Amino acid sequence: MPYPSALVSPATDAARDAAPVLAALAPPERGTLLRDLSGVLREHTGRLVALAREETHLDETRLRGEVLRTCVQLDMFAEIAEEGTYLDVMIDRADAEALPAPRPDIRRMLIPLGPVAVFTASNFPFAFSVLGADSASAIAAGCPVVVKAHEGHPRLTDLTAALAAEILPTGALSVVHGRDAGRALVTHPVVQAVGFTGSTAGGRALFDLAAQRPDPIPFYGELGSLNPVVITPAALVARGKDLVGEYIGSVTRSQGQLCTKPGLLFLPEGHGLDESLHRAISATRPAPMLGPWIADAYRATLDELAAHPSVHRISRTSTDGGRTGVRADGPEAALLTVTARDLRANTELLQECFGPASTVVTYTPVEDLLATLRLLPGSLTASIFGQEGADEEMSRIIWSTLRAGRLIWNDWPTGVAVTRAMHHGGPWPATTSPLHTSVGGTSVARWLRPVAYQNVPEGLLPEPLRTSNPWLVPQRPGA
Amino acid sequence: MPYPSALVSPATDAARDAAPVLAALAPPERGTLLRDLSGVLREHTGRLVALAREETHLDETRLRGEVLRTCVQLDMFAEIAEEGTYLDVMIDRADAEALPAPRPDIRRMLIPLGPVAVFTASNFPFAFSVLGADSASAIAAGCPVVVKAHEGHPRLTDLTAALAAEILPTGALSVVHGRDAGRALVTHPVVQAVGFTGSTAGGRALFDLAAQRPDPIPFYGELGSLNPVVITPAALVARGKDLVGEYIGSVTRSQGQLCTKPGLLFLPEGHGLDESLHRAISATRPAPMLGPWIADAYRATLDELAAHPSVHRISRTSTDGGRTGVRADGPEAALLTVTARDLRANTELLQECFGPASTVVTYTPVEDLLATLRLLPGSLTASIFGQEGADEEMSRIIWSTLRAGRLIWNDWPTGVAVTRAMHHGGPWPATTSPLHTSVGGTSVARWLRPVAYQNVPEGLLPEPLRTSNPWLVPQRPGA
Repeated sequence: MPYPSALVSPATDAARDAAPVLAALAPPERGTLLRDLSGVLREHTGRLVALAREETHLDETRLRGEVLRTCVQLDMFAEIAEEGTYLDVMIDRADAEALPAPRPDIRRMLIPLGPVAVFTASNFPFAFSVLGADSASAIAAGCPVVVKAHEGHPRLTDLTAALAAEILPTGALSVVHGRDAGRALVTHPVVQAVGFTGSTAGGRALFDLAAQRPDPIPFYGELGSLNPVVITPAALVARGKDLVGEYIGSVTRSQGQLCTKPGLLFLPEGHGLDESLHRAISATRPAPMLGPWIADAYRATLDELAAHPSVHRISRTSTDGGRTGVRADGPEAALLTVTARDLRANTELLQECFGPASTVVTYTPVEDLLATLRLLPGSLTASIFGQEGADEEMSRIIWSTLRAGRLIWNDWPTGVAVTRAMHHGGPWPATTSPLHTSVGGTSVARWLRPVAYQNVPEGLLPEPLRTSNPWLVPQRPGA
Repeated sequence: MPYPSALVSPATDAARDAAPVLAALAPPERGTLLRDLSGVLREHTGRLVALAREETHLDETRLRGEVLRTCVQLDMFAEIAEEGTYLDVMIDRADAEALPAPRPDIRRMLIPLGPVAVFTASNFPFAFSVLGADSASAIAAGCPVVVKAHEGHPRLTDLTAALAAEILPTGALSVVHGRDAGRALVTHPVVQAVGFTGSTAGGRALFDLAAQRPDPIPFYGELGSLNPVVITPAALVARGKDLVGEYIGSVTRSQGQLCTKPGLLFLPEGHGLDESLHRAISATRPAPMLGPWIADAYRATLDELAAHPSVHRISRTSTDGGRTGVRADGPEAALLTVTARDLRANTELLQECFGPASTVVTYTPVEDLLATLRLLPGSLTASIFGQEGADEEMSRIIWSTLRAGRLIWNDWPTGVAVTRAMHHGGPWPATTSPLHTSVGGTSVARWLRPVAYQNVPEGLLPEPLRTSNPWLVPQRPGA
């Protein structure tokens, strides 16, 4: 392995030792741990938010909302751990008459994979960080977590981990810092799976390391997404102008630093909204981004897209530094426009511009639209604004053309609800693993593997598989 | 991509066109397809078995049993497709009071990944071939299949595919031949996932191709497994001699050409069974293997292991060609022995020898045993022969030390029951993906990905997500 495991050994050794302790906890015990983690975040919200503001430049309302979201998420996983549905217990009784041969007693359940690595995200210092969705779901599953801290909020990471350490068993959650430590973690023999939220380039490099191990391990990366939004001709007529305001709101929410930001808005050609779009984007206020590295990348990608001969800029060109109150790291929001035909001819334009920018794609219904949608890479979301009664058939075709993890009707993709059924994933490059989600109740499945017990007597079976069912978990008959 | 997609384009084009057709079938329609496939195998069993005997040298009883197993398996997937539990429908109603924010209506279900590739196995010309577990589960999921034929039974592959073509929609199942075609399949943009059963080296090479794609896809490989079996001191005393006969039976079943063959038998030192073992293995009859390529690999691995200074041979050395009825491609069964301590010092001995050979490892209870078990790679199975009342504690420790997909008590690992709860998988190198199984009801999950529908009106929802539930599939509330 190219990255010395010694860089992370204290953390991985501790995680290895914690694995059997965490795995052995009964459902109510694991539930209590998760609820206590939620409690400690609520208790220290003020202190945590103050530090997060300093390190991320996100505003207080957003950060307080994010802490609450993180607590609700921990509470949800506490319920999931307590109920035991996630164990997916299935019992096939022995059957002497079975074909092609008499069959033994087979009882299946899911068990924790072992220690896992979690890479925290710059844009969600709580909800996708130390005690965010990846860690909460892993602990619910019974897996110790080694967190690779994002360089954007290292002190917040350490503070959150210190608060968690008061509650969790020793070694159940540790933090490492630095890119080499991250690479050492992905290639460390103790680590059995990886959760990652970040850029396509960074995620791909780590995915490759995981796949190249002598023993490849699952790598769950949530990477880049264009999140196309289609406005049908009927919806344009009915409420085009209202949609413009909502669109710009979704594009600039959290300074566009959201993986579900609508990157492409498909509008019928001759939509007549140019002036509204120009006015709405011009009315937005520049604001600092998470850090200079993100602002620089945003500007570079935006400049590259805007310089393309097929692309026009709806918003004025940047006046960085020329206006009062504009910070060097707070670039302006931007709107670009291109025809569907030109987009098809220049697929290099199909790249995510992380930040408050989006591209309006003008189309002629319907083949011109569909031909373009067919070229889009996988996305986390795909939204349609349409009219009930008029647009059902077209919407069905659009959704069957797009490959996305969440299909949205008359709503914007930003603001991912933390619910059991939520799916936050999708085909490459939205994620590295289209079968899994990093938000919602089923995200716990990423950290579990099935085991079948054959002809094992009651006393030797783990609690969830016993006929006496001491933990009262759901047991379903196979056949 | 290094392998020209034109090699497989007729098949992948047909699969691409068949994907929406197969995906749109209602549960009873997909169930009927699977039952009809089972029916056509039953109807043509005689013809199929005759051709399989010619190509694989497996005996008629085994082959007839395997056809029946394949039919039972297709019937099981028909039931699964009809019930719709595999769709894992979950519905979260909108909630204006939800924290941290009002939440929309979110409905989640699983949808087919699209066309998949299936590599057939040499050792199961029916149950892991054209209409075997991978194909049956993929069709149940709604995914067209392109089969890469194993070179060991090409004519049987074509005959089976021709019979299937009479039943399935056009393009839902095609066959390609040759190694380059196999590589072109794994790297083809249309192919969305791969199922493979075979050697660790072959599987790893294809896994690497799948991981290196510009858009990596899931690769489900079932590779190599040592399948350790531990006999406790108490079990040795109680029925050591009986176990010897059963052990040799399990090792030589289907000429040892089973992925669940017990490759390591742990016996207490001073077990006193040397003579019984020698007698039992000497009483076995050489028989042809699947083909010369397998026989050659078997001999080479066996010779390498037997030549190791720490290893002794319990059975006589091979007398290939010296006895009447011994075919050049029918090598003898073989037993080796090594101490647990020597095995720990020479981990290069921990390799699968595919064929009728196994290694007896002698141990001193209990640390010497556990220290050795800790070094074993992941396995499909781990068996213990123990005495109820005496061996529970030790068995628990053994199972927590081993990493395996199926834990077996007082039974042999060969003869995998085809039931809903069966898990045929395990940590690397048993498989490339420890979350999944290639046998049993849950194997269908490999070919599906979740999609969440947000705020979508009833008429636009797919049938399984509608409140009216026209397909009567199980719908569970999220929270």
